[in-house]
Amino acid sequence: MPETEKNIVWHAHSVSREKREIKNGHKGCVLWYTGLSGSGKSTVANKVEELLSQRNAQTYLLDGDNIRFGLNSDLGFEEKDRRENIRRIGEVAKLFADSGTIVSVAFISPYREDRERARAIVEKSGLVFVEIYVRCDLAVCESRDPKGLYKKARSGEIKNFTGLDAPYEEPVSPELTLESGKAAPGELAEQVLEFLNRKHILL
Amino acid sequence: MPETEKNIVWHAHSVSREKREIKNGHKGCVLWYTGLSGSGKSTVANKVEELLSQRNAQTYLLDGDNIRFGLNSDLGFEEKDRRENIRRIGEVAKLFADSGTIVSVAFISPYREDRERARAIVEKSGLVFVEIYVRCDLAVCESRDPKGLYKKARSGEIKNFTGLDAPYEEPVSPELTLESGKAAPGELAEQVLEFLNRKHILL
Repeated sequence: MPETEKNIVWHAHSVSREKREIKNGHKGCVLWYTGLSGSGKSTVANKVEELLSQRNAQTYLLDGDNIRFGLNSDLGFEEKDRRENIRRIGEVAKLFADSGTIVSVAFISPYREDRERARAIVEKSGLVFVEIYVRCDLAVCESRDPKGLYKKARSGEIKNFTGLDAPYEEPVSPELTLESGKAAPGELAEQVLEFLNRKHILL
Repeated sequence: MPETEKNIVWHAHSVSREKREIKNGHKGCVLWYTGLSGSGKSTVANKVEELLSQRNAQTYLLDGDNIRFGLNSDLGFEEKDRRENIRRIGEVAKLFADSGTIVSVAFISPYREDRERARAIVEKSGLVFVEIYVRCDLAVCESRDPKGLYKKARSGEIKNFTGLDAPYEEPVSPELTLESGKAAPGELAEQVLEFLNRKHILL
């Protein structure tokens, strides 16, 4: 990039965060779903989007589908790239929240440090970060195996599989814990909505 | 990142692009403003946001302020990083457009090839990319010099300055050309709105 853009002067944007929030009827925020493969992160996140959409909320979902093949398609799977993957997702989630969107992020994101870094990025901008731990026993996740990944991992076809031969670090104090094995996705989604109401994210 | 996330299965998102468009009263699209430093890109983009906000449109502005210090803070200024800078902006703009937002991108983006790559990213996803050339004579830009950058460039304090000792490649067939020296920002913004109406981006 030319040196021209190195010298950045801050502009006041005409449409403020507050204006967007009033228009949308809610604050922008980041709903960060974390949990094992098969725990139901995407299923619950989609249910929440559906419920919010019925209230005309502005929502968006960041997941492997739209991130891994696009923005982060240049990243590999070693340590350095894993961190960079989550950093970028945190930065993009921050932009969406700043735009007034309730943005859901559904990634296994197994490392505490990575999630804390994402949280810091969002909160530094004065935006709300909601860590949602989708808790589910490994045995249940493995019996669901919606993508057939556990089977591949058990056969050795996939290595470093979270929960088997790679660690999943449980959140220490997530804003919300959803017991995925014990309630239907719709009920879990209602718990998220309740939280958003209680915290006055829905205005 | 763990191998787990390497094996991506596409989910159908519950809230479709069409649903978002109907709710917002417009399609998502990318307004890509390009032009010399001081040509008025940010000024016009902000005016357009203001006008769209009066119509309750969902808008967002990506510019040096929110990109350079965040998502792209790891990038330097050499060739490779310059390209990566614009690639990521294109990818993020695509996500915003997919979310139903009219997203404005205001960067000098002096190289044709970089802009064409951004266009390809957006159009590949079936979204509209509007290249807006904010045309302004170098002499006019230099006389405005809102950030004092031309002065620094002339004194040798800044090198590789677009328009002086680094090239600006004019768009060959931009969707819109705004004559920045010849009309007020408000008038130029109206031309953008007119275009969005004519192309049925505003529904």
